[in-house]
Amino acid sequence: MFDYKAAFGNAVDQVRAEGRYRVFADLKRVRGQFPRAVWRRDDGTEQDVVVWCSNDYLGMGQHPEVLTAMQAEIDSVGAGAGGTRNISGTTRSAVDLEAELAAWHHKEAALLFTSGYVANEATLTTLQRIMPGLIIFSDSLNHASMIAGIRNGGCERHIYQHNDLEHLEALLAAAPADAPKLIAFESVYSMDGDIADLAGTIALAKKYGALTYLDEVHAVGLYGDAGAGIAERDGVLDQIDIIECTLGKAIGVMGGYIAADALIIDAVRSWAAGFIFTTSLPPALTAGALASVRHLKAHPELRAAHQARAQALKERFLAAGIPVMPSESHIVPVHVGNPVHCKMISDMLLEEHGIYVQPINYPTVPKGTERLRFTPSPNHDDGMMDALVTAMDKLWTHCNVARLPAVA
Amino acid sequence: MFDYKAAFGNAVDQVRAEGRYRVFADLKRVRGQFPRAVWRRDDGTEQDVVVWCSNDYLGMGQHPEVLTAMQAEIDSVGAGAGGTRNISGTTRSAVDLEAELAAWHHKEAALLFTSGYVANEATLTTLQRIMPGLIIFSDSLNHASMIAGIRNGGCERHIYQHNDLEHLEALLAAAPADAPKLIAFESVYSMDGDIADLAGTIALAKKYGALTYLDEVHAVGLYGDAGAGIAERDGVLDQIDIIECTLGKAIGVMGGYIAADALIIDAVRSWAAGFIFTTSLPPALTAGALASVRHLKAHPELRAAHQARAQALKERFLAAGIPVMPSESHIVPVHVGNPVHCKMISDMLLEEHGIYVQPINYPTVPKGTERLRFTPSPNHDDGMMDALVTAMDKLWTHCNVARLPAVA
Repeated sequence: MFDYKAAFGNAVDQVRAEGRYRVFADLKRVRGQFPRAVWRRDDGTEQDVVVWCSNDYLGMGQHPEVLTAMQAEIDSVGAGAGGTRNISGTTRSAVDLEAELAAWHHKEAALLFTSGYVANEATLTTLQRIMPGLIIFSDSLNHASMIAGIRNGGCERHIYQHNDLEHLEALLAAAPADAPKLIAFESVYSMDGDIADLAGTIALAKKYGALTYLDEVHAVGLYGDAGAGIAERDGVLDQIDIIECTLGKAIGVMGGYIAADALIIDAVRSWAAGFIFTTSLPPALTAGALASVRHLKAHPELRAAHQARAQALKERFLAAGIPVMPSESHIVPVHVGNPVHCKMISDMLLEEHGIYVQPINYPTVPKGTERLRFTPSPNHDDGMMDALVTAMDKLWTHCNVARLPAVA
Repeated sequence: MFDYKAAFGNAVDQVRAEGRYRVFADLKRVRGQFPRAVWRRDDGTEQDVVVWCSNDYLGMGQHPEVLTAMQAEIDSVGAGAGGTRNISGTTRSAVDLEAELAAWHHKEAALLFTSGYVANEATLTTLQRIMPGLIIFSDSLNHASMIAGIRNGGCERHIYQHNDLEHLEALLAAAPADAPKLIAFESVYSMDGDIADLAGTIALAKKYGALTYLDEVHAVGLYGDAGAGIAERDGVLDQIDIIECTLGKAIGVMGGYIAADALIIDAVRSWAAGFIFTTSLPPALTAGALASVRHLKAHPELRAAHQARAQALKERFLAAGIPVMPSESHIVPVHVGNPVHCKMISDMLLEEHGIYVQPINYPTVPKGTERLRFTPSPNHDDGMMDALVTAMDKLWTHCNVARLPAVA
């Protein structure tokens, strides 16, 4: 008989051996004090911390307008949606949110999913069912959810080198001219903070007759005059076929969606198992997201403050000789280059300085590029940055990690 | 060049041609008045309706304790979790909820997912990665999310006839004795309302060295002294290896989970992409679910009332000659046997009687077994039942649908 215990034990041991066994930090966010939170240790004791790695990029997850909208919806409607979208679970704020999201992205329609992960997985799988013979061209650093969706459909797929349009064009040129094709990519890549060339990718899509599928989860709310993402900033909203995003990062709640032509949305809506056979988002989430999106659209100064804070942190790290990695965006990655040091620095920041930032190790990033990834928000003030830079400077010396050449 | 518009158009046309094009009813639930809601027509006009097809089986989605817990958590913590479980998104109420769920199912540990769909898909895919060579034995009527998880992992799989233990045993006996095996099944099947033979399935699993994976989404909260499901009712909680459930039906919120030995949970937690790479459930949802579970554990009288209401509706339908289908559970399916009639009766119930119940057509159920599926809750009172039975009786005559022989 098969030894199940050994199999599960081996699976855990393998993760430990690769240095990627995860211990989750038990955090209690404190409304109105973002990015401050309370960390609960295994022994039950607590410590105040400043969170430096949240994807609640603008603190909208604690914005009074969002919280008020959620509480009002609970007062008015209740807790859960009570069913799938088709079976009693289409709540009014979900319908209104879909209309708002479609308009934001200059699309005819939008479709909600329970998460950004599900939006990617379900849509990319379903497009393969709708277009048998579809060939997908996928950026090598695409998110796990896109990879899952592409793989689960089983279609022919080609991985192009990250943000390498020459490679992408070579692959497109080699495919049959009349085959259905889809280019799947992200705008802001969250681990390096670099940004794709949208116009260049769109030009290739037109030249070779491909659809474009753009994941903007790390950009929506943060870029463009109205916050609709890099596609808005670059003036190409109407040239991306399908935009995918999350309600869980800059919008500060939870859930995911796609926006596209009404016909595309109707087809995906009608075919995607991951959309059809699942309980809908609770009304409080769709109402909260709706309030958040409306606020984000109307407040470009939040985006300016966000960029300024990210720029400030990059400059402070550079001045202290901390090896901040090149980043075109709000993401501030700091190179450590060793998984043990990376984990150690993260642990010491938390234990000794009340600074919470997760180590990013293989396989999330390539070996030798282990890093700490900071996400400063408009709510991270100068005092917090002082404390962070001072602590990092101390630990860099303590752990003898390489500094930038100029100040090493 | 490929004609994308035609492809999407064909996909929608095919769904229409099969009579399964979905038009979602835009509903506004009204707190404290469950199962009453307000239906918004396309033209913006509204009508009060009674919802008869929600999976919020006990009305917990509007229970004051649940709503108060959610609002208090929003007051205290905010809207979203702010990240994945590993990157700043492990909130305290999620940790507490996992402990509560584990204890409820008499298991060492539990693991939250963003939905029941994701719990099934991610866990069943991941088990195949942890145990290469795994053979899965799957009931023919398993839910789409289980099918997705089984297929996406790509392992050898055998489908056994629904609830047919002889067929299951024949398939198990034909597989190599030392291969890892998993039997995946549900306790309550939601379209027919029948219940699996848990003890018989467990005996086969032991005889042939297989793990058991039980989906209790239509049973948890509703069966067993403490509401832990059919496994509790049947006294076999400790003999099921992995129990999967949702927070979106009887618990009334949203989310999913598995409960199992700590080692199994640790392995799935460490390997499941659908768990790792997604924003965690918002604190308000985990806090609301925690309050709901605690209430459900302590209130067996809710379960008694639920069963009594289901029994009453079955008896009233029978007395009126309405062909209620055999059901061992709280699900009350009524046979129509024709997709056009089924949709027509559903539309007329809504338009003329303010009664909302979705038609269940192919492919959700086999052709010729089209039905209306009622889910009476403790909140559906005698007056609502009177109105329902009167309306159904009238429409049965109007549409000339077959009645039960005895009263036809």
